[in-house]
Amino acid sequence: MKIARTNHEVREAVANARMQGACIGFVPTMGFLHEGHLSLIRVARENGATFIVVSIFVNPTQFGPNEDFSRYPRDEERDRALLESEKTDLLFLPRVELMYPRGATTRIDAGAVARPLEGVRRPGHFEGVATVVAKLFNIVQPDLAAFGRKDAQQCAVIDRMTYDLDLPLQLVFGETVREHDGLAMSSRNSFLSAEERGKAPVLHRALRAGEEAITHGIHDVAEIEKLMHRVVAEEGGVEADYLAVVDPMTFEAPADFDRHVLVVGAVRIGRTRLIDNIRIFRW
Amino acid sequence: MKIARTNHEVREAVANARMQGACIGFVPTMGFLHEGHLSLIRVARENGATFIVVSIFVNPTQFGPNEDFSRYPRDEERDRALLESEKTDLLFLPRVELMYPRGATTRIDAGAVARPLEGVRRPGHFEGVATVVAKLFNIVQPDLAAFGRKDAQQCAVIDRMTYDLDLPLQLVFGETVREHDGLAMSSRNSFLSAEERGKAPVLHRALRAGEEAITHGIHDVAEIEKLMHRVVAEEGGVEADYLAVVDPMTFEAPADFDRHVLVVGAVRIGRTRLIDNIRIFRW
Repeated sequence: MKIARTNHEVREAVANARMQGACIGFVPTMGFLHEGHLSLIRVARENGATFIVVSIFVNPTQFGPNEDFSRYPRDEERDRALLESEKTDLLFLPRVELMYPRGATTRIDAGAVARPLEGVRRPGHFEGVATVVAKLFNIVQPDLAAFGRKDAQQCAVIDRMTYDLDLPLQLVFGETVREHDGLAMSSRNSFLSAEERGKAPVLHRALRAGEEAITHGIHDVAEIEKLMHRVVAEEGGVEADYLAVVDPMTFEAPADFDRHVLVVGAVRIGRTRLIDNIRIFRW
Repeated sequence: MKIARTNHEVREAVANARMQGACIGFVPTMGFLHEGHLSLIRVARENGATFIVVSIFVNPTQFGPNEDFSRYPRDEERDRALLESEKTDLLFLPRVELMYPRGATTRIDAGAVARPLEGVRRPGHFEGVATVVAKLFNIVQPDLAAFGRKDAQQCAVIDRMTYDLDLPLQLVFGETVREHDGLAMSSRNSFLSAEERGKAPVLHRALRAGEEAITHGIHDVAEIEKLMHRVVAEEGGVEADYLAVVDPMTFEAPADFDRHVLVVGAVRIGRTRLIDNIRIFRW
């Protein structure tokens, strides 16, 4: 696995691979890798990528002032070993000063889809995400890029931006990888104490309860959301941030239940904030 | 000259040219071409471009609700003949519905440099410019793109965006091309009546007066601006929108006169708004 630390090193390695006929697959991450990230490498390969670029960059501009940027977990050595084991071709490790030189001011706003839910709770978050992802796309210039569906609204924001700006690449999305008890894999799970870890699966359980209600014909958004809140409340020690039924395109309440809907939630357990979602397909 | 009307047609033609070793030069325009536009084709060639792509797209999102979008001059047949005579390789003529399909919401904001002067007078203008230019860059994927210095703040906005988003291309800027009496060439000059056309060179004369004052050692911004306003007032029938001395990087008042400064102005003559500028190099 080659390591690149500058735009030039990335572009040179990618151009060489492309000259040899490679299809460039890109998996942007914030590191502290888990099975969810590694599955995205496989998703990229399944979609035709023959040269895998992974970036690790804890992007400061997508963290709010009271969020967990400084304590976000980092373990470069372990990450490198995991990426080697997945036969990653190129690891891009940009420094903050490379990504945001003094005077950088340009921001990308994906618009309406970035407003509700996470958009309300984390002002500026999706602008930070959209901008850094566009930068990484422009540096790596991949043929395809893979993102995990655990961050459902982030996927929608990146999809919107990629389409609206005519970015010349294909997006592929990987299913959420879960622990045996349903907890969605997340680098932030490492923040949980043993007791908190015991409570964490309640988020997925609440979403599953919402899913079941919908598939059993309950199509009253308020009722479904109340039901999900009840599941979280019964656990105790877990604070629901939001538990919602939304249209997966707009992240607003669905106009009807004739098409796909998404149940999506965020909870706080101690100092840790976790998110998850389930897509519900309707015919 | 090949004509492309879809992203796919552009990308196919550009990919073919690149496979044959071409260096792709791109000149985005709003059409109604004049010598200023055509000079940019030559500037692109001088900088190494061997395959010239020109786009003509009157971009609605960079016009305010009370601006001249609907009456902006158009003459596709004449434009095509001019581009043929410059041996343009590919002309991209996207329709509005192609560039802005229903639901498109993503916007790019270049930040501080887009705020003063034109930014104040034309809210949303530079967001419209930055977004459409990024889209065109992503569709054409040129090696270099040429812009005219007549639109000085636009050049700064695009420069800022290109740098901040790591867009993989080189920008080149062409000097303002002028009529014999100093009037900067502009598609909007066609709006002027004979009488208005007679008054129009006063904008350049005012900027020249500002330039002369600066080169003669007058370094009081207010005094220089007053002088430029006096020149415009003396002409009569021309309304100064702004006449300013600015730092060419920030478009704010210069901190000092030890480096380059820009005198920049906008005037209204009847219903027509004209802009111009002069760069002043200081050692």
